Amino acid sequence: MIRVAIIGASGYTGAEAIRIVLQHKRAELTYLTALPDECGAVGDIFGQFKGRCNLQIEPLDFAQLKKSSDVALCCLPHKVSMGFVPKLLAAGLKVIDFSADYRIKDAALYEKFYQVKHTDTENLKDAVYGLPELFRNQIKGKNLIANPGCFPTGALLAIAPLLKEGLIETDSIIVNAVTGSSGAGKNPSSKFHFPNMNENIFAYGIGSHRHMPEMEQIASELAGCEVKILFQPHVGAFDRGILSTVYCQPKANVSSEKLAKLYSSFYADEQFVQVCDSAPAVKDVAATNYCHVFATCAKGKILAFSAIDNLVKGASGQAIQNMNIIFGEQENLGLY
Amino acid sequence: MIRVAIIGASGYTGAEAIRIVLQHKRAELTYLTALPDECGAVGDIFGQFKGRCNLQIEPLDFAQLKKSSDVALCCLPHKVSMGFVPKLLAAGLKVIDFSADYRIKDAALYEKFYQVKHTDTENLKDAVYGLPELFRNQIKGKNLIANPGCFPTGALLAIAPLLKEGLIETDSIIVNAVTGSSGAGKNPSSKFHFPNMNENIFAYGIGSHRHMPEMEQIASELAGCEVKILFQPHVGAFDRGILSTVYCQPKANVSSEKLAKLYSSFYADEQFVQVCDSAPAVKDVAATNYCHVFATCAKGKILAFSAIDNLVKGASGQAIQNMNIIFGEQENLGLY
Amino acid sequence: MIRVAIIGASGYTGAEAIRIVLQHKRAELTYLTALPDECGAVGDIFGQFKGRCNLQIEPLDFAQLKKSSDVALCCLPHKVSMGFVPKLLAAGLKVIDFSADYRIKDAALYEKFYQVKHTDTENLKDAVYGLPELFRNQIKGKNLIANPGCFPTGALLAIAPLLKEGLIETDSIIVNAVTGSSGAGKNPSSKFHFPNMNENIFAYGIGSHRHMPEMEQIASELAGCEVKILFQPHVGAFDRGILSTVYCQPKANVSSEKLAKLYSSFYADEQFVQVCDSAPAVKDVAATNYCHVFATCAKGKILAFSAIDNLVKGASGQAIQNMNIIFGEQENLGLY
Amino acid sequence: MIRVAIIGASGYTGAEAIRIVLQHKRAELTYLTALPDECGAVGDIFGQFKGRCNLQIEPLDFAQLKKSSDVALCCLPHKVSMGFVPKLLAAGLKVIDFSADYRIKDAALYEKFYQVKHTDTENLKDAVYGLPELFRNQIKGKNLIANPGCFPTGALLAIAPLLKEGLIETDSIIVNAVTGSSGAGKNPSSKFHFPNMNENIFAYGIGSHRHMPEMEQIASELAGCEVKILFQPHVGAFDRGILSTVYCQPKANVSSEKLAKLYSSFYADEQFVQVCDSAPAVKDVAATNYCHVFATCAKGKILAFSAIDNLVKGASGQAIQNMNIIFGEQENLGLY
Repeated sequence: MIRVAIIGASGYTGAEAIRIVLQHKRAELTYLTALPDECGAVGDIFGQFKGRCNLQIEPLDFAQLKKSSDVALCCLPHKVSMGFVPKLLAAGLKVIDFSADYRIKDAALYEKFYQVKHTDTENLKDAVYGLPELFRNQIKGKNLIANPGCFPTGALLAIAPLLKEGLIETDSIIVNAVTGSSGAGKNPSSKFHFPNMNENIFAYGIGSHRHMPEMEQIASELAGCEVKILFQPHVGAFDRGILSTVYCQPKANVSSEKLAKLYSSFYADEQFVQVCDSAPAVKDVAATNYCHVFATCAKGKILAFSAIDNLVKGASGQAIQNMNIIFGEQENLGLY
Repeated sequence: MIRVAIIGASGYTGAEAIRIVLQHKRAELTYLTALPDECGAVGDIFGQFKGRCNLQIEPLDFAQLKKSSDVALCCLPHKVSMGFVPKLLAAGLKVIDFSADYRIKDAALYEKFYQVKHTDTENLKDAVYGLPELFRNQIKGKNLIANPGCFPTGALLAIAPLLKEGLIETDSIIVNAVTGSSGAGKNPSSKFHFPNMNENIFAYGIGSHRHMPEMEQIASELAGCEVKILFQPHVGAFDRGILSTVYCQPKANVSSEKLAKLYSSFYADEQFVQVCDSAPAVKDVAATNYCHVFATCAKGKILAFSAIDNLVKGASGQAIQNMNIIFGEQENLGLY
Repeated sequence: MIRVAIIGASGYTGAEAIRIVLQHKRAELTYLTALPDECGAVGDIFGQFKGRCNLQIEPLDFAQLKKSSDVALCCLPHKVSMGFVPKLLAAGLKVIDFSADYRIKDAALYEKFYQVKHTDTENLKDAVYGLPELFRNQIKGKNLIANPGCFPTGALLAIAPLLKEGLIETDSIIVNAVTGSSGAGKNPSSKFHFPNMNENIFAYGIGSHRHMPEMEQIASELAGCEVKILFQPHVGAFDRGILSTVYCQPKANVSSEKLAKLYSSFYADEQFVQVCDSAPAVKDVAATNYCHVFATCAKGKILAFSAIDNLVKGASGQAIQNMNIIFGEQENLGLY
Repeated sequence: MIRVAIIGASGYTGAEAIRIVLQHKRAELTYLTALPDECGAVGDIFGQFKGRCNLQIEPLDFAQLKKSSDVALCCLPHKVSMGFVPKLLAAGLKVIDFSADYRIKDAALYEKFYQVKHTDTENLKDAVYGLPELFRNQIKGKNLIANPGCFPTGALLAIAPLLKEGLIETDSIIVNAVTGSSGAGKNPSSKFHFPNMNENIFAYGIGSHRHMPEMEQIASELAGCEVKILFQPHVGAFDRGILSTVYCQPKANVSSEKLAKLYSSFYADEQFVQVCDSAPAVKDVAATNYCHVFATCAKGKILAFSAIDNLVKGASGQAIQNMNIIFGEQENLGLY
């Protein structure tokens, strides 16, 4: 059994990681931590785990962590995470980090978007971007995985075949995405107050969302050249899911049939990416680790769509998928 | 034109009052006030009024109030309101108070449920309970109206015919109600954080909701004897509306047909109470001042249902209805 | 491995059964059937199973069924089911029937509420009511289980301790329940058309809901005397869940503390019934097999609350729980 | 008083037109028609009008229409409308047509997208596109108005200033829009069945939506050259509203400040178009005739956003606005 610690277990991604590990045949929760004022019995912090998980969420104690666990799912916020990850690694654990701190290889770029000096460039170099469908071979056996952002996961899986095949112009990609409101995290705010958010949808982070440089970095890696992406997120009145609608300029004429074949072949061996024959719907992937993709042509452009659950394939599910790979387990354990 | 001030205009009932007065042919908004840190242009405080209302919400100034307005819709919270109402009256305005401060005639009972000494028992005596369908004659020309609570409005309209006719036992009435989430007010909290409230429904205030004594007082007045009500509120994942399901024990056998006739006759002259021939739905009354009622027999009990919009018939719409009555205007102005 | 057939797999309870069996360690789906025009690849019928389940839903063939499966989850509608169950049993399968056909022991009562002659009174006699927390010992090893209705499951678990202990009057129980809209099934209708159902809540089935006699029968069995229940269902604008609010008249004074102790003790060994210390919320049990219960006193009455997921504990989850019991497996397999 | 007939009053746009005319000071409903099996008392057809409107919806009788009404709001479906409009005009009424039949000036293009021969090219020539903010002068006094589609209204108001000023490339505009589910109309279907649509969002009509040629025609008129638009609609789980996110390529560098000034100046005299200083939200315009717009620069593109209510500014509200203009009334009557 893989012994799993969750660092920062009191938020939505922590809860989702708990849910998944509970139904994992070859992993078990051994240690859950949070800030002192968010500690307590799991069933009290999250009503949905009453009777399903009898652990306590406790303040982090490294000695306890070291002796109890093989892997840490580090669900801390950006900027905070890089203060803890070196110690988690030093304690001998594999680390799957949910923050952005180890995703952006260019520390200067990170510092520009996150407005803070990167304090762990050492481990940053070794971290692998944990999008298994694109980087599986680099993930195997690694100690530190930078678990991808939710928007980048959706956008990259939607267009990876196009980038790899060099079918599209790389200076004019537009990613229009709509996320469910769980993406906002658990802290109440006016925008996400139910009477304000319900029956609503709006754009935010125009030109400045922090997932944009992450998307561009990985897209560039896939394309083998610099890729420029205009990423525009929106938030809608539903709990879970991200629908990405990506607009691309093809380099040359390409038919919808050819795209269908390309996608089917590109993802032929991937359980968690399903190629659809029409536009995907977020409800079909809610509470699953699946990504539904579809690409087609219209008005001289290529439109690529993807749907994921932001908390699962966009966060905790993908983390468990990475964990399974690191430990040499069957990749879909806990994620049926 | 009736010149309308709204005291405490920065909350949901304030916004709803603004919306209604804007479409009122014979009333106009003249003065809007709030606490200093909630002031500003109406269109900035409430996005829905951008370009529709060019007033400012300002800190309350009594001199300004006195010269600008004929009536004050006082949307202040319980306990705060009774500190202002005497001054509003002294300024020569008619006052329609949204709080509970002038609803409960028995100051000791008020003090028990609200845990504070009543500081304006003088005006409390003169205040009229502003449920026009039941107390229209007392409302006409009055200076101070205690605008009813949202739950009492729904519950009382559902059972008033039964109480007035003496058809039911008065010691065993059960009011089961579900309110939309706007009833929680505008301040963000964990329970009403969208990802927590969405797809949810739960009970609260068991045995202790402050609308219970208010319901009992008015019900007793209607019945001419002491009425005991078990009131159980719930909150559901929708913006507007209260559905009340009331369970009553008939004193003697009564047929559903007789109930239908009684209700139709009781509310025959009331525009805003519509007697349905099946269970009402909150969506049919959303954003209107209407109350849909239905009563029938089942398993030896009488079931009475009502649906209202908690912000309109349950608050701001009823206030305008009261205002129309006080000023001798057609009762439905602004409330089509 | 338990080989599981689902008869009538193309509806919501069928989908939910598929989802649960997919994550069951000791059971596997072997045969899925539906009416001819609802057949096809599971991933085409239900988008959420694309790539997760590669079976076909096929027209029922008894020879195929017999050779492929050990147990049939029979998700057929009321009245239809009793035409198939005898044949499923004759084919040598254990049968867990989701319809009402084998729940009501009194065939005359069944015939009154379902307006059809019962055609399989033979098996009706032997069927066991599959509410494991109340009838576990009778379920073990049985061939035919009548899987309980969703509303009776929620209501009975809420009040079973009161009935067993004889604490309440049995002629005046009121069950007020609100179900999510998945309870309506998959066939589109005007009431459940999104623009009509969204932001709505309403009562239905007043005095006539078919789950009422089922509740009364089992409640009577628990109480050891005839129990009369007024059951009033409502439907709300959420996908999953039933919140039951039950109003009871205590025979003698009882404290909330005593109720808390009673419930904790009554359900001490039950994983799937969790006793809460405040009113439960449906979101906490969504997509789980758990039932959250709470009982307390108010205004001389006992209020008992329960929350379940209507598709899981109210249908498919409970069926798998029954299946686990019949086959001597750990009761929570597939249901963490 | 303007005497208003609604032809096809039994659908969502009919209901919305009824709601608006009811609160219009200088117009009154005089005649409501629908197909025979959708006729009846307004309050029975639409629960929300019980007691608010005592008219009957009746089968269309031209003699009755002629004598009762000055204007017909023709809410018939595409293709059906052009069979009636000539007769409505012949009866001497002004006609505001909600269908697409009189919007697309090029009959061949109409026939391509609607797959039917245009049978009234005579009136097509004279019809004016009823987007008052852009074509007010042509609307005044006209007999036949083609009321714009909901998506074109939102998209065109978002980018009209850019097109008129010639600031953007006209061959690469992308309109990404999300509509609420009322856009689907009142007929139940599987996609809009509440348990399927709730918590969902998906794209549809890829490359083929019928509003695309309409957008292109009007955009071309505004730009004075051919405009090519890739329009991609989505549907979300909310009742009302369309959020349009438009991606444009500027011809030359332009600052966000300059865009803000341009929009403010362009819409300075327009009550119903409000220029925001950040991205608009559909909830702010729900149930109003307002359009909120915002434009800014990001990553070398111009992003223009708009929010409207699809049933009001996108249909019935705009129709009343057109009616007010035709009859020389104050433009915002009924539409505060």
